[in-house]
Amino acid sequence: MAQFMDVHHGMVGITAEGLKEAHDADLAIQGEERVNFMQAWADPATGVVYCLSEAPSAEAVQRIHERAGHPADEIHAVPLQV
Amino acid sequence: MAQFMDVHHGMVGITAEGLKEAHDADLAIQGEERVNFMQAWADPATGVVYCLSEAPSAEAVQRIHERAGHPADEIHAVPLQV
Repeated sequence: MAQFMDVHHGMVGITAEGLKEAHDADLAIQGEERVNFMQAWADPATGVVYCLSEAPSAEAVQRIHERAGHPADEIHAVPLQV
Repeated sequence: MAQFMDVHHGMVGITAEGLKEAHDADLAIQGEERVNFMQAWADPATGVVYCLSEAPSAEAVQRIHERAGHPADEIHAVPLQV
């Protein structure tokens, strides 16, 4: 499995509850694409959300995000970590 | 302490060794600004690097990155996490 960082823009004003709801919507269906969303971080001021996942492909990540109602604007494989 | 995600562009071809060297250069001086760089992820194909930190301010994060030779292109406070 590879790791991916995906980025959502335009989420200005997102709340802790909104982030949890969005994340839970991903978790509810992620197994169908063998995706594992591990962490997410949000900046309500500028509306950026970052999601870290393990997945078979960027397309699998996007399919889950699309079905959950929040397609990512960018998805980057991140094979290097420290 | 707040958490921040910063983003570097233009790092196409970065290697595991290069990422570790850059991260170690941050760690060596981060205490002077009370910054704690926790994790970093890199996509050598598109040249994007993400760094997660705890710090007193975005400016403190940037001062460490600048002194280490790799200023960030974006720094976002990420007060929300799941």
